[in-house]
Amino acid sequence: MSTRKKKNPPKLRIIPLGGLGEIGKNMTAYEYEDDIIVVDCGSIFPREDMPGVDLVIPDVTFLSKNASRLRGYVITHGHEDHIGACPYILPQVPAPVYGTRLTLALVEHKLKEHKVTGIPLNVIAAGDTTDLGAFHVEYMHVSHSITGAVALAITCPAGTAIHTGDFKIDYTPIDDHQADLGRMAELGKSGVLALLCDSTNVERPGYTMSERTVGETFYRYFPKASGRIFVAMFASNIHRIQQVVDAAVRYNRKVCLVGRSMVNISKVAIQLGELHIPEGRLLSVDEIDRYDDNELVIITTGSQGEEMSGLTRMAFSVHKKVDIRTGDMVILSATPIPGNEKSVSRVINKLVSTGAEVIYDALADVHVSGHACQEELKLIHVLTRPKFFIPVHGEDRHLHQHAALARSLGMPAENVVIASLGDIIELTPDKISVAGSVPTGSVLVDGLGVGDVGSVVLRDRKHLSQDGLIIAVVAVDKEHGVIISGPDLISRGFVYVKESDEMVEGAREVARSVLREYAHIDQSDWPELKEDLRDALQKYIYSTLKRNPMILPIIVET
Amino acid sequence: MSTRKKKNPPKLRIIPLGGLGEIGKNMTAYEYEDDIIVVDCGSIFPREDMPGVDLVIPDVTFLSKNASRLRGYVITHGHEDHIGACPYILPQVPAPVYGTRLTLALVEHKLKEHKVTGIPLNVIAAGDTTDLGAFHVEYMHVSHSITGAVALAITCPAGTAIHTGDFKIDYTPIDDHQADLGRMAELGKSGVLALLCDSTNVERPGYTMSERTVGETFYRYFPKASGRIFVAMFASNIHRIQQVVDAAVRYNRKVCLVGRSMVNISKVAIQLGELHIPEGRLLSVDEIDRYDDNELVIITTGSQGEEMSGLTRMAFSVHKKVDIRTGDMVILSATPIPGNEKSVSRVINKLVSTGAEVIYDALADVHVSGHACQEELKLIHVLTRPKFFIPVHGEDRHLHQHAALARSLGMPAENVVIASLGDIIELTPDKISVAGSVPTGSVLVDGLGVGDVGSVVLRDRKHLSQDGLIIAVVAVDKEHGVIISGPDLISRGFVYVKESDEMVEGAREVARSVLREYAHIDQSDWPELKEDLRDALQKYIYSTLKRNPMILPIIVET
Repeated sequence: MSTRKKKNPPKLRIIPLGGLGEIGKNMTAYEYEDDIIVVDCGSIFPREDMPGVDLVIPDVTFLSKNASRLRGYVITHGHEDHIGACPYILPQVPAPVYGTRLTLALVEHKLKEHKVTGIPLNVIAAGDTTDLGAFHVEYMHVSHSITGAVALAITCPAGTAIHTGDFKIDYTPIDDHQADLGRMAELGKSGVLALLCDSTNVERPGYTMSERTVGETFYRYFPKASGRIFVAMFASNIHRIQQVVDAAVRYNRKVCLVGRSMVNISKVAIQLGELHIPEGRLLSVDEIDRYDDNELVIITTGSQGEEMSGLTRMAFSVHKKVDIRTGDMVILSATPIPGNEKSVSRVINKLVSTGAEVIYDALADVHVSGHACQEELKLIHVLTRPKFFIPVHGEDRHLHQHAALARSLGMPAENVVIASLGDIIELTPDKISVAGSVPTGSVLVDGLGVGDVGSVVLRDRKHLSQDGLIIAVVAVDKEHGVIISGPDLISRGFVYVKESDEMVEGAREVARSVLREYAHIDQSDWPELKEDLRDALQKYIYSTLKRNPMILPIIVET
Repeated sequence: MSTRKKKNPPKLRIIPLGGLGEIGKNMTAYEYEDDIIVVDCGSIFPREDMPGVDLVIPDVTFLSKNASRLRGYVITHGHEDHIGACPYILPQVPAPVYGTRLTLALVEHKLKEHKVTGIPLNVIAAGDTTDLGAFHVEYMHVSHSITGAVALAITCPAGTAIHTGDFKIDYTPIDDHQADLGRMAELGKSGVLALLCDSTNVERPGYTMSERTVGETFYRYFPKASGRIFVAMFASNIHRIQQVVDAAVRYNRKVCLVGRSMVNISKVAIQLGELHIPEGRLLSVDEIDRYDDNELVIITTGSQGEEMSGLTRMAFSVHKKVDIRTGDMVILSATPIPGNEKSVSRVINKLVSTGAEVIYDALADVHVSGHACQEELKLIHVLTRPKFFIPVHGEDRHLHQHAALARSLGMPAENVVIASLGDIIELTPDKISVAGSVPTGSVLVDGLGVGDVGSVVLRDRKHLSQDGLIIAVVAVDKEHGVIISGPDLISRGFVYVKESDEMVEGAREVARSVLREYAHIDQSDWPELKEDLRDALQKYIYSTLKRNPMILPIIVET
């Protein structure tokens, strides 16, 4: 046996549990013999067809079943789509977590909020290495729209996989800390088995601009403002906050942070020394009334038009302390994430009609992406020279485009695997293949419930939302089997009943005529009676109104 | 009195009933003394917070109250946001309708579908004039993404208003029929009182490209296809269909139209001589199996990822006759309308994973807009030289940008009115002002119901969709006032009940404990009992699950 085993080439198995066919809930398991490590532990926003759902996380049945072999979670950076599932999954399948300072500070904050304890959090820095079972993990600095992002070189006897995480190439980053292209090239020289690379921006030609270009926009617009300046952005973009602070200093304005996550994350970043706000420059929201409008910059959340964010509440005058008004300048330092266009527009429309001057993506360079465009991706491919390529972090359209990009650089088509969630991608030094799959998918989080909302519940929610509900209540005398009250019809979300007398009376008559056909009702008749009531009411309502409300017959026996 | 009246300057009143603060449901009333005309009669898609609603149309209470003074509807072109409300509003406030051939063919089709009869439809052509009461209406050809679009010069004793409708400046249109810039310049020379101008693309610098650039993309990609070619687009863009047909002829392929509106509109356009398909070139969908893949071009709807469209059904293999498969080329000749990004992406993802080659907006010049960009808008302002300016056809962000554009051309700020729906904009030869308002707004169409779904119904639908519904049923003996059955809990869209035994039993116990507090129940107690049941269940469920389902207590008396 053992001689035979030695003849087999070493096998690395890579199992994507999230982040393929979707932009979000990134999670990838690496398996070598008895050891498993997991890269990232992210969440994704629910799709439109998941009403009421707060969050979606990966299904980690595979990890639960192999918990004893799990050596650790390695987190590339602190965005929600890479850490958002931590409070749900870490207690379920505990293991030590590895990440840079800011990343782990954000994970720690999340765990505390969910009262999760006992998970070891191990801070690493770019350049460090960690041995996790058979895996040797090396952390390489990359630029992204959050600080502390790392790419990973994951080495096991089968070879080295480079897992980029989210990244861009910024030659002039705000902290002067460039991506470690040198180390990637070195690894490329010594042989990289596989590249797993961010595909988010693969459809965009050219290069993503440097974060500094956004700073230039601040410097261009700040001197034009005669009143207060509001800048809305993602709270996690510490470098962008730094640039607003720097511009505020330059134009002699105080800075105030508004919005829970903006306040929280900035506080952490200041503690870690990643955000620098000069002494006396930062005001609390209660202090701003003491200053003139032209002495203030307010940095807030809500660049995606989120209902409960700082900007939205200030725009619609529902914020407790600050309203946006005529004379204010508002810079939306973001582009809408696909799906958010309408909510962003709603906020812009409200702001311009309030009389504020609004600077947004259609009008100025208020944002740069955190992800590499085509030429940057090509650079990574060329430097790392992988034998095999697995495009990750993208919808199908992105994965296929990224595969085409790799082929355009000379990668043989058979060396590229476009995988699906749960696929077991098996790599030996000479071969890549999909060798089966593990069960995975989406787990829905709704309030405190994790996984108790499934397809039937969602189908009912959608049905209820489309045409509402009609309840038909009938009381039956147990002894004599006769109807003693009803049919009463109660509706919600259907029509404005007071103005639909005729239709409602028609429906009641339809229900009555169904009941007349039942001379004597005992419990064995209930299923049929309910079915008949549902059918008759459905038919009547569809023919009258072309609507299809949920119909719930309720029989009470007394 | 009459001498005094003569001293008053003539007054034109313009009352926007739709299309301001929104892109859609365009409708504008022009009033001069006893005469009213209405420009356009459009619908808009429901917002996300209007679940189950099919369509939204303008509230025309003002027109109903002044029906005897209404001289006609003038329609600028045949898009839904300009004609979509016709089958609902024309029967309610009938008057003759004026429009070009294609426009009225589309209106007629709509009226027939809704069995509306007795509305005179008067075909006009660009260059014609019509007298409607005190109004002299002149039709001027413009380019747009549908044929037969006209701008209007509306003259009354107060002066001439130019109402552009939707337009772009295409110097090389497919039918060689350029916008009538000469006539606009002539009107500008002789004095234009007011300009009402399309604001859709006012945020975009430069010029909208000619429709011909899309044709060039077809000519570039068609020869690369070795299998079938699918082109998805809006059915109403006759010129685009023409370009696909021309490219098909050039590359020796037959053409097949798939999708109800594609078939219907093309048929009308062929009849009117606006679409030319050479003899023997057009196949029915049943004929395509007789041809090789490389002999076929299939033109279809669904460029916005619409659920029931041709493309979506063919992509997800639910079309009765055609499936898209490996080797097919699919050109999505459109960009997603804001809000449709995700549904478009869903279709692209499905197509690429099927193995089709998909050409979409991120990858090629597959689309041009039908609306004028900044430089084209400036041209119209400069040619027509209006005294007053009213930006229309845009959300607030667009209207404000368009006002800024007008000011940048030298228009005094006080000569611009950014109006709201229902505003009475009063114009004399010397003055523009808002002189009150009329009631207007949105009327929701849901199935056959027009206006019976309002804010309470929508609020309930949203509530139901978020966390579902719990019904608590209690039967009470009338005579003795005691509970004889229940509390029974029935839920829909809440949790997967079979896996939530404990929570459901807990809720039932909470309901029981409420009932225990009522020794004797008569009808006067019902409101309080219901309230108590609702409160107790709500509290219990929120504390257990952080969810807030709708709770409906039902008491049955027997």
